[in-house]
Amino acid sequence: MAMKRAASTLITASSKISSLSSPSSIITRDLHASGGKKKIVGVFYKGGEYASLNPNFVGCVEGALGIREWLESQGHEYIVTDDKEGLNSELEKHIPDLNVLISTPFHPAYVTAERIKKAKNLELLLTAGIGSDHIDLNAAAAAGLTVAEVTGSNTVSVAEDELMRILILVRNFLPGYHQAITGEWNVAGIAHRAYDLEGKTVGTVGAGRIGKLLLQRLKPFNCNLLYHDRLKMEPELEKEIGAQFEEDLDAMLPKCDIIVMNMPLTDKTRGLFDKNRIAKLKKGVLIVNNARGALMDTQAVADACSSGHVAGYSGDVWFPQPAPKDHPWRYMPNHAMTPHISGTTIDAQLRYAAGVKDMLEKHFKGEDFPEQNYIVKEGQLASQYR
Amino acid sequence: MAMKRAASTLITASSKISSLSSPSSIITRDLHASGGKKKIVGVFYKGGEYASLNPNFVGCVEGALGIREWLESQGHEYIVTDDKEGLNSELEKHIPDLNVLISTPFHPAYVTAERIKKAKNLELLLTAGIGSDHIDLNAAAAAGLTVAEVTGSNTVSVAEDELMRILILVRNFLPGYHQAITGEWNVAGIAHRAYDLEGKTVGTVGAGRIGKLLLQRLKPFNCNLLYHDRLKMEPELEKEIGAQFEEDLDAMLPKCDIIVMNMPLTDKTRGLFDKNRIAKLKKGVLIVNNARGALMDTQAVADACSSGHVAGYSGDVWFPQPAPKDHPWRYMPNHAMTPHISGTTIDAQLRYAAGVKDMLEKHFKGEDFPEQNYIVKEGQLASQYR
Repeated sequence: MAMKRAASTLITASSKISSLSSPSSIITRDLHASGGKKKIVGVFYKGGEYASLNPNFVGCVEGALGIREWLESQGHEYIVTDDKEGLNSELEKHIPDLNVLISTPFHPAYVTAERIKKAKNLELLLTAGIGSDHIDLNAAAAAGLTVAEVTGSNTVSVAEDELMRILILVRNFLPGYHQAITGEWNVAGIAHRAYDLEGKTVGTVGAGRIGKLLLQRLKPFNCNLLYHDRLKMEPELEKEIGAQFEEDLDAMLPKCDIIVMNMPLTDKTRGLFDKNRIAKLKKGVLIVNNARGALMDTQAVADACSSGHVAGYSGDVWFPQPAPKDHPWRYMPNHAMTPHISGTTIDAQLRYAAGVKDMLEKHFKGEDFPEQNYIVKEGQLASQYR
Repeated sequence: MAMKRAASTLITASSKISSLSSPSSIITRDLHASGGKKKIVGVFYKGGEYASLNPNFVGCVEGALGIREWLESQGHEYIVTDDKEGLNSELEKHIPDLNVLISTPFHPAYVTAERIKKAKNLELLLTAGIGSDHIDLNAAAAAGLTVAEVTGSNTVSVAEDELMRILILVRNFLPGYHQAITGEWNVAGIAHRAYDLEGKTVGTVGAGRIGKLLLQRLKPFNCNLLYHDRLKMEPELEKEIGAQFEEDLDAMLPKCDIIVMNMPLTDKTRGLFDKNRIAKLKKGVLIVNNARGALMDTQAVADACSSGHVAGYSGDVWFPQPAPKDHPWRYMPNHAMTPHISGTTIDAQLRYAAGVKDMLEKHFKGEDFPEQNYIVKEGQLASQYR
């Protein structure tokens, strides 16, 4: 069955051979991929002292997605690590002979063109979660690889977290919390810039799975809801959600009291919110970004928070990740940042661990994955990444 | 017109004269209340350096609800202060001759039986906001006074804030924020106890105006919603909200992953969540309390957070307020406390300022207030306080 899949990979890849940098690598991949026993490497964040505190904490190195026993019982080798950066890292050691690499957006294994070139046996890159921008997708496609995510596994988790961050900013929660823990009591210091969410204009930049879930959760708050996307929703869904389509992003943005980022990071969206675009936003705008840090110009965001043009910024995504100690977003005023966690609740971990297991099972049998999971399917980029 | 009102107060109060401690005080009140020019005292939190930062910041001492010009133009005297405690306070100085006292739950002027006895000219106690438990309602009723709130003025504000706090606790937001500002990055330290709200059981203790608004906002989160109240909702509303009635509080509580307090503080509800009741809650329960601090046994809550039986506690109400520097809730683990702010957003301030102005206007004209605003109407306690 694995043979069948490898053969089909070869055919697809060969058919677009002119776009490949090194056609001979396909042959090599094919030969290795046909073997039944695989070397699988998982890159996750370390659980450390927390690993043993919750039996459902499967998303950390120690939890290893709960699939070690299953993989090893079938004779596969399963290496799990959090050591992912640089030529001396544990990950780098296994690049030359791994067959499958599993990683997460929370502690991303950056799969560069160089690593892909070096990974002669690589067949499959799985993202435990959603968002595979840590992988050089063009290089992966050119090498005839498959990249897949557990689509839907943590969309609810992220949408809930976005709504929390909207409220934290609108209601000016953090200065109040700070007072509570430092022994102060100064209601005015909070209330002079605390608002209701009701009646405000919220715009989502992107209304895919997460954006739609957010809009649905926002509906009872009686806001003015706007969305920008490549695609207008079906009229019925749009009516149910109660949001208005904005074809032109730059026409929508200045209307918004609150902007939520809900788009993938691609070559087209990288740095989308630069100094110029931020300058055109409403003064006092609040921004929530659980999508990707690199959608924003880092320094432009920090400067706009310092000047007060942006009245609050909250998100759990940074570039790079882990964020260095001197990342400016750690120190800018009125932020509500966290490490990358919104998609890795215990509930989400259980779902994406199950999704990874399902895809591995299908891969071993040479079966296709659920179509929506593919980012690169045997060398072909999914439409939104082209 | 003021005469008419004063007269009716006298009749109502006289008709229940047997329950009054000092019938002669009614006569005195009547004589004074009949004057056209009133002395009105407002007790609010101080704006200080923040007062001038927002023209809509009317809820602070400096903002004075935006009614000074209007009151003074009619010849009334309007004293505003934040100095409310003890015999040497500014408030105390005016107790003997004030006609109307306006206060807020955020910076409550505690109106004790002693103060009521001393306030010979007092006619009306207005709460700018919701919740008049800072007033000794039985003493106010016995003295034939009227106590009224701006019912509905900040119900949305409080309900939004409750949902924020639910999410902050469920998602384990604060440890992540702490990492962001201290230069750390340890996803496991957050994720091992972060959950989705979806699928969890949320119970509200009380489903009045705020409780219903919360339930409506929770509906799209796909939780299991329960409510305990004196009254079952109309079947149609119950279906629309999607919550299940629990007649027996102690039967509901152990089912809940998350408990939200949404009841007034009365003699019956004071200390409702004591050590014994908390012990019967599900281990790992999360509690949100924006209702009143004195609904809980302070030390029992702190102990349960320390032991881990309560996995998180968030609210903006304390007893007393301002909370002293050594209040145990400031220091217990896994809390997300703030000073009392949920009902005093800028939007709420504008609404309760307008509501206070409306009631003063009606009072001067001898007209009735909207019925739902009354807590004590001319010596008669509203039904839920009896």
